Amino acid sequence: MSRGLLLVVEGAEGVGKTTQVARLADRLVALGIRAERYREPGGTPLGDEIRRLLLEPAAHGVSPRAEALLFMAARAQLVAQLEARLREGTIVLLDRFFLSTYAYQIAGRGLDEMLVRDANQLAVGGLTPDLTLLLTVDPGVAQARMHARGGLDRMEREDAAFHARVSAAFLAAADGSWQAAHPEAGPVQQIDAGGSVDEVAARIDAALKSRWPETFSGLGESL
Amino acid sequence: MSRGLLLVVEGAEGVGKTTQVARLADRLVALGIRAERYREPGGTPLGDEIRRLLLEPAAHGVSPRAEALLFMAARAQLVAQLEARLREGTIVLLDRFFLSTYAYQIAGRGLDEMLVRDANQLAVGGLTPDLTLLLTVDPGVAQARMHARGGLDRMEREDAAFHARVSAAFLAAADGSWQAAHPEAGPVQQIDAGGSVDEVAARIDAALKSRWPETFSGLGESL
Ligand SMILES: Nc1ncnc2c1ncn2[C@@H]1O[C@H](COP(=O)(O)OP(=O)(O)OP(=O)(O)O)[C@@H](O)[C@H]1O
Ligand SMILES: Nc1ncnc2c1ncn2[C@@H]1O[C@H](COP(=O)(O)OP(=O)(O)OP(=O)(O)O)[C@@H](O)[C@H]1O
Ligand SMILES: [Mg+2]
Ligand SMILES: [Mg+2]
Repeated sequence: MSRGLLLVVEGAEGVGKTTQVARLADRLVALGIRAERYREPGGTPLGDEIRRLLLEPAAHGVSPRAEALLFMAARAQLVAQLEARLREGTIVLLDRFFLSTYAYQIAGRGLDEMLVRDANQLAVGGLTPDLTLLLTVDPGVAQARMHARGGLDRMEREDAAFHARVSAAFLAAADGSWQAAHPEAGPVQQIDAGGSVDEVAARIDAALKSRWPETFSGLGESL
Repeated sequence: MSRGLLLVVEGAEGVGKTTQVARLADRLVALGIRAERYREPGGTPLGDEIRRLLLEPAAHGVSPRAEALLFMAARAQLVAQLEARLREGTIVLLDRFFLSTYAYQIAGRGLDEMLVRDANQLAVGGLTPDLTLLLTVDPGVAQARMHARGGLDRMEREDAAFHARVSAAFLAAADGSWQAAHPEAGPVQQIDAGGSVDEVAARIDAALKSRWPETFSGLGESL
């Protein structure tokens, strides 16, 4: 059996990652393709406990360094599980991965880039995404979606300067020179996340079909 | 007010670290010296939650990489707190620190040395112990002490080869060339942990008095 694919969906808050991951997983399963979705932090019992520690508003006054290392611990546990799924041939859809670490811990919190990247390497071993779909949209649109949804978590309560650094970092990752300097991210393809859920989904379908025509031949055709 | 001292007590299981840290803290407080004891992992609310996740026997099937990163997260949170104590002039006694990471995660589990050391750097920032007291004793003696105490945790259940690698790593750290190659450990002084609790305590008192005669002038005199 051939190895599955690790497809990561990334982007700033409210851009529609979780919505698109869920929709794509449902589409693939409907097409008879073995697909599973995961999110970070989480996806394992340990990761869920870490998620709870991290995302409770101000629960423990977690320091930025401890926060980064907790994210990496959850990632390490998840990667061990994903590798088994990929060996079985599963298409793994992952809601956030290394680009979020780059955007939040390095650009947002200002932690040392090389130390954080080495902690990430410790977490992932050699696992690199086959493709990262980077959803980008006008920040005002994302914020409107997010506020419509309600219930801000600890990250979402950070100030405007923090979010400006995070957004700029996600945009930087769309650039070929950034990708060459950060091989652990794998290939990154920017997707316009403006418009309706269906419009964004159609752009994602097209991106996947163009890269893997055989695997995703059914995508984008009406079921 | 002058900066306090970070004194770390290290060594293999059952060698008497916790016993000696408690005894030294009591002695210092009785002499009117501001001293506090901490242990790793733990020492903060977040660290105590991490300790629970880590030391429950097989609680979550934690992978070696996740384990290392969880230890580093607990350390990062503790270090932020210790730095405040040190600035206030407190003598901080710490039961395990970087040498345990070296012995368990690098030598014991076989994780990549540079990646683990960088994760440690991310955790500690620039904080280096003023002195590490490395307690060493014949492995049979430590094991007898440990079994007399009872209740083995997850680490203590590892196999003999694992423990042989751990013990060899602790011994290596007594060497000057190891210390030069691992500046984040700070100075390490080996202490013979054989004999009675009082005999070991007297060796620790002597080591501290010889390095900081003024601070520890009262140690080793009967109270
Ligand atoms: N294309 C879209 N048009 C309008 N609303 C959308 C669109 N995509 C998602 N939404 C809505 O916007 C909100 C945010 O979407 P979603 O939760 O998927 O974003 P996210 O990127 O996962 O956010 P977070 O980073 O906070 O997890 C949700 O309420 C979702 O239903
Ligand atoms: N010098 C000593 N002689 C005899 N027994 C001792 C001595 N020091 C400690 N003990 C006993 O040995 C046991 C192990 O000591 P302790 O718990 O202090 O070791 P430790 O190094 O902290 O172990 P661990 O790594 O498991 O935390 C305890 O029951 C303690 O009372
Ligand atoms: Mg989401
Ligand atoms: Mg102990």
